[in-house]
This record gives sequence, C-alpha cells and structure tokens, in this order.
Amino acid sequence: MNAPVKISELEVGYDIPALPGMDEADIQTPCLVLDLDALERNIKKMGDFAASHGMRHRVHGKMHKSVDVALLQERLGGSVGVCCQKVSEAEVFARGGIKDVLVSNQVTQPEKIDRLARIPTLGARAICCVDDLDNIPHLSAAAIKHGTQIECLVEIDCGAGRCGVTTTPAVVALAKAVDAAEGLKFAGIQAYQGAMQHLDSYEERQSKTDIAIAMVKDAVDTLKAEGLDCDIVGGGGTGSYYFESGSGVYNELQCGSYAFMDADYGRILDKDGKRIDEGEWENALFILTSVMSHAKADKAICDAGLKAQSVDSGLPVIFGRTDVKYVKCSDEHGVIADEAGVLKVNDKLRLVPGHCDPTCNVHDWYVGVRDGKVEVVWPISARGKAY
Amino acid sequence: MNAPVKISELEVGYDIPALPGMDEADIQTPCLVLDLDALERNIKKMGDFAASHGMRHRVHGKMHKSVDVALLQERLGGSVGVCCQKVSEAEVFARGGIKDVLVSNQVTQPEKIDRLARIPTLGARAICCVDDLDNIPHLSAAAIKHGTQIECLVEIDCGAGRCGVTTTPAVVALAKAVDAAEGLKFAGIQAYQGAMQHLDSYEERQSKTDIAIAMVKDAVDTLKAEGLDCDIVGGGGTGSYYFESGSGVYNELQCGSYAFMDADYGRILDKDGKRIDEGEWENALFILTSVMSHAKADKAICDAGLKAQSVDSGLPVIFGRTDVKYVKCSDEHGVIADEAGVLKVNDKLRLVPGHCDPTCNVHDWYVGVRDGKVEVVWPISARGKAY
Repeated sequence: MNAPVKISELEVGYDIPALPGMDEADIQTPCLVLDLDALERNIKKMGDFAASHGMRHRVHGKMHKSVDVALLQERLGGSVGVCCQKVSEAEVFARGGIKDVLVSNQVTQPEKIDRLARIPTLGARAICCVDDLDNIPHLSAAAIKHGTQIECLVEIDCGAGRCGVTTTPAVVALAKAVDAAEGLKFAGIQAYQGAMQHLDSYEERQSKTDIAIAMVKDAVDTLKAEGLDCDIVGGGGTGSYYFESGSGVYNELQCGSYAFMDADYGRILDKDGKRIDEGEWENALFILTSVMSHAKADKAICDAGLKAQSVDSGLPVIFGRTDVKYVKCSDEHGVIADEAGVLKVNDKLRLVPGHCDPTCNVHDWYVGVRDGKVEVVWPISARGKAY
Repeated sequence: MNAPVKISELEVGYDIPALPGMDEADIQTPCLVLDLDALERNIKKMGDFAASHGMRHRVHGKMHKSVDVALLQERLGGSVGVCCQKVSEAEVFARGGIKDVLVSNQVTQPEKIDRLARIPTLGARAICCVDDLDNIPHLSAAAIKHGTQIECLVEIDCGAGRCGVTTTPAVVALAKAVDAAEGLKFAGIQAYQGAMQHLDSYEERQSKTDIAIAMVKDAVDTLKAEGLDCDIVGGGGTGSYYFESGSGVYNELQCGSYAFMDADYGRILDKDGKRIDEGEWENALFILTSVMSHAKADKAICDAGLKAQSVDSGLPVIFGRTDVKYVKCSDEHGVIADEAGVLKVNDKLRLVPGHCDPTCNVHDWYVGVRDGKVEVVWPISARGKAY
C-alpha cells in the first residue's frame, strides 16, 4: 500500500482537513471529527430500539446534512427515510439515493413549491407539512404541472410554538382539503414537540409529551371517524422518543442528535437521573482544535471560534479533560483556561460542541476516524442548503 | 434583452438564491442581500477617511470572506491589501488577485506553515503574526524550502486577551529572531484591540485604545533604537479607527464590519452619543427572510433561524419596522411577534444580523441589489475556509 498523501502535497487551495489513511495527529484543524465506532453504536442502538417498539425511524437529516450518514443510518439502523427542513436539503438527499424524504416544514414560496414537486422525478417519495389552507392549491398546481404527487402531513403545534395548527377542527379542515386536492395525498400528522427536548428533567419532558400525545390522539381519532387514515404520525426527538414510542399513537420517530450527541443534549437526564451522555448515547461528534498560542502562562488560545461552531446553546466542552476548560469564544479563537500550563502550542483537543446542528452547518467535511487513523472524509452534502 | 432566467427553470439541485436581472421580490430565502448603494458609500467613506488621515487601509477580509467585496474595496476605497485569519482564506484572496495578504494570526501547524510559504507563488506578499520564539525556525524552514519570503509582524496583546505578547522586551526578542532568520522579514507590529470595539461608550473605547497606543508606541520606539523599523503598525477596527488614525503610531487600519454593519456594532455610540448606524455607517448587509407560517394570530414564523445566522451577539433586528419584532430563534425558524397581525405568508423582511462575520460564514452567496433588481450574485469565496 502506498503511503498516504499529505495535505501539503496537494495543490494550494485544495481545502480539505484530512485524507483517508492519514494519522489522526496529522488532521488540519479546526474540523469536525466523527468517532466511527461510537457513531455506529449510536445508530444501531436507536435502530434496535425503534424495531423492538414497532416504530419506524425517519432520521432527521437536518442535523448532520450528510448523505453518507443518512445511508449509514439506513444500513445499520434500518431507517425508513429522512426528514429535513428545506427543499434544497431534500433535493440533496433524493439525489444521494434516499427514497423517502419528508420536508418536515411548510413550503410556501412559489419557486420552492415547484422544486418540491420535482423531487419525485429524482426517484424519491416527497412529503411536506401544511398548516395553511391557502397553501394547498399551490402545492396541488405544482404537482399537476409536473405530473407528480406530493404527500402532505398536517402539522400540529403541540408545544414548540412555531408552525402548525392547535385544534382538531383545524387539523380536519386541512386534511380534507389535502385529500380533495388533485396531485396531493393526505399522509398523516406531523407533531414534533421541539421546545421540551432539552429540558433536564425526565418527568418534565414526559408531562409535556403527554400533552402532545393527547392532542395528536384526538386528531388521529377524529380523522379516522371522518374516513381519513394517517399513514404517518410522526414526531419524537432524542429527548422524548421513548414517550412517543410507548404512546400507541405515533408510528414514526424523527430523531437526529442521538447519532452525534452534543453538550447541551448531553446534560439532560434519563429516567434514573443520569446524564444521557453517560450511558444512553456516546459523543461521536467532535470539533478537533489545536492550540495556536500560549503567550500567557495561564491560558491557551485554540483555533476553534465562532466560525467553527454555534454557541447558541452554550460553549463547547473539552472531551475527556478536567484540567483545562474552554471559557471564551470569539470569531476565530477559543480561550482555554490552563491554570497549570499543561498545554503546548499544536496540542490537539476534542471539543464537544454546545449544539450539533448549527455547528455541522458551518463545516464542509466530516473526518471519520477509527483506531487513530482517518478512515473516511465525507462531504457535508447539504451544508448551507437553506432554501 | 432576454427575460431573466427563473430559479425554477434551473436543473433541480442547482442551489442559488437569485440570478442577475431578477426582481428583488423573486429572491429565494433565507439569503444574504447586499444593498450595493449603501455598501459602495461605506467603502468610499472609509477609504476617504484613511486617505485624508495619511493611513493605509488593509481591509479585514475575514468579515466578508469575498474576493469580489475585497476587489471593490480596492477599487472604490483604495485599500492596500487584505488581512484575514486563516491560511486557507489567504489562499483564496491571493488566487482572487489580492496582491498583499496578511494572516493576522499565528500560523503554527506544519501543514499550514507549508501552505503559507507557498502563497508568494500565487503572486501575493505573504505576512503572518508571531508571538512565540519556537515558531520562527519552522516559518523560516518553510520559506527556504519553497524559495519564498514570509514577512512577520510581532503581535502585541493590547487588551483583547487572545494571542500576542504583552511586554516590549518580548516584542524585541521576537523581532530580532525574525530579523535574523533566513527566509523571513521583520515587517512590524500587529496590535488589534478586539475586546473594546463593541463597548457602547466612545470615551470607554478611547481610554482602552489609549492604553494600546502607549504599549505600541513604546515597542515601536524601542525597536527603532535597536535598528528595527516597522513597515507596518497595524490595528484599528470599526469601533476605534479614528483613535489609531490620530495616534501618530499606527499606519495601517484593519476595519471590516464598517462595510456591512450589524446590529451589535450599530448600537455603539459615536463621539456625539449617536448610534453609529444612524449616520456614521449604513446597514448594507441583510438576511432576507420570508414568513412561512402564520397559523397563530399574534406570531409569524420566518425561515431564518440558526442556520442562516449566528446569534452570539444577540438576535437580528427587523430593518425599517417597529410594528413587528424578531423575538426567538431556533435551528430553522425565527419567531416574529406580530401582535397586530400585519404580516402574511410569503411576506419578505430584511433582518440586520446581530453579528456579521459568523453570519456571512454560513452562507454561500451574496445577492447584490440596486433599485429593486438583482445586479450581482457573488460567491462567498472563503466561506468555511477555517484551516
């Protein structure tokens, strides 16, 4: 086998943090690193959970934005498809070979509706959410124009306070309008309680989810009485999937963060009061960073700042270290308190990001490592797909 | 002239928010919009200021990460070059035709040092900062290897609390080591006071800058006495450039945000106690967003969330409106308080981002508009260049 190519041997301007075969120590920073063993264990574990509870798992692709990760979730975790939040993301997943794609969001701009209606021409089932009667004729017209079918879930706002209707009569009116519209198919309910996923207390999350489940059950039962069956009743995230799975109402989970984990999710507690990153899920995603300056004795400056992560949910945590702490973040730098002066320039650290989704969205590559070697370098194929 | 091409006529997956010639109303959202008239006025104004104060202006390219904007700053604002924070950004600017590029940061990883040493082969002057004696032999060896020259500024930490040394003897030791190293050239001082740029009070900013100026003057005078002249004494941002310009010590400004403005900078006060976005600089950068749901009477949900911006310095402000307010941000959504219910689905709003630099870094394109038409669509050429 040839020696792996070094980054410095590439043409200037070819910007990639690592190449397969390289030692982990030679990776350019800051970049995102995936611990492939941990990732695979997380994916299998959630797949096994869903299967053993009779649930389908439609993995949330908006978290990782990667066709490669989605295909791994299909292969190892038995996922039935992907959900994502943008039509442009759905295009990437459909072109990448995912056959069942839900835009778990409203699609209202004319150009986007047109693009959504063309997704079946890429070989994938196309599903979106609706919460507005006026939206339905536009979706219908686009499907007719392209000779395709758009399936629609009626979105219930079951606590997130964003899109979605809040009463069963409103759900029924939307479902009937979809059912009657040429080119569209009523496919069920979208009811993701996004606001409580990050509450620390298991019991608080449970009581919020119970309210959501009751709302969804009422809607599903009423629709059934009206002759409208729900193929999909979807929702459930990393902080709640066990509640939806035991509900007898939901049939599809939409978990995302479980696969990578982050510092904010890691802090929430399981039913035994234990942090979910201490047993339930493993940290598989890291920002690899290097110390670039240590001109002051008690602080090290690293190369991962605001352009390498989102700090909306708090600062990153240095993985596996208690002697040093990431204490401040500016555009290009992180300040690490290093009272004992244990770090040196070019030392590398693994950071667990505060919030995985928007952190992944600033990077172009996942560097997958196993046993100290770079095994894969995956493009973050839907990064920046915001339309 | 032909009718402008519509986005929906493009191949599925060709992901661009607008095309030149299009009406502003047809732009896909969320995306970044530049008001070209305001941008040009800001660039000319800072260029005129620098010229009339005998200062060179090395514009900060890490803010916009765009070769097109940097070339406009050269053409309309007389800028002498670009500073940026990463070697991979410097490569982009050098390849794009900028002839004088400063990496205003330490370069310590072996692969990055090698790439830095190759930048002169792209036709540009290459300058970086040093704050560590051990770094100098590595920079020297790379320059010798590639037969190029790396110029070095000694970085003084004059208050930002990040990289840089804090005493004149440390500055002199570094300058002498650079001066003695083959392949390197001592070029002067880097002294950017990043921590006080965003303080509201003009007087507070002035007193912090006065401390910085005194530190830098002592270093420059001592170096001169040792026979080491500073070609560049660089620093100064949007919140302080008038102080450095009047110092008699600095000769290069490094302003970035003035060109675009943002909500956090906009709040700081000028010497008359007036916000700097009410006279000194115009908002030229906006996140264009659309209302995608209004299922609740008192709130509109828009399509610009955490993946369309960084909220590290606060939420965005809706430009030119006092009747509606952006109050909450999640991954894909913004919640807009709309008590009077004045917004409708697909209404567009211009948001002034909280912090321009990391917001630009999540987008791929600038859509430049004038008189209601899309005039240019510029790639954010160094977006994601983090190495």
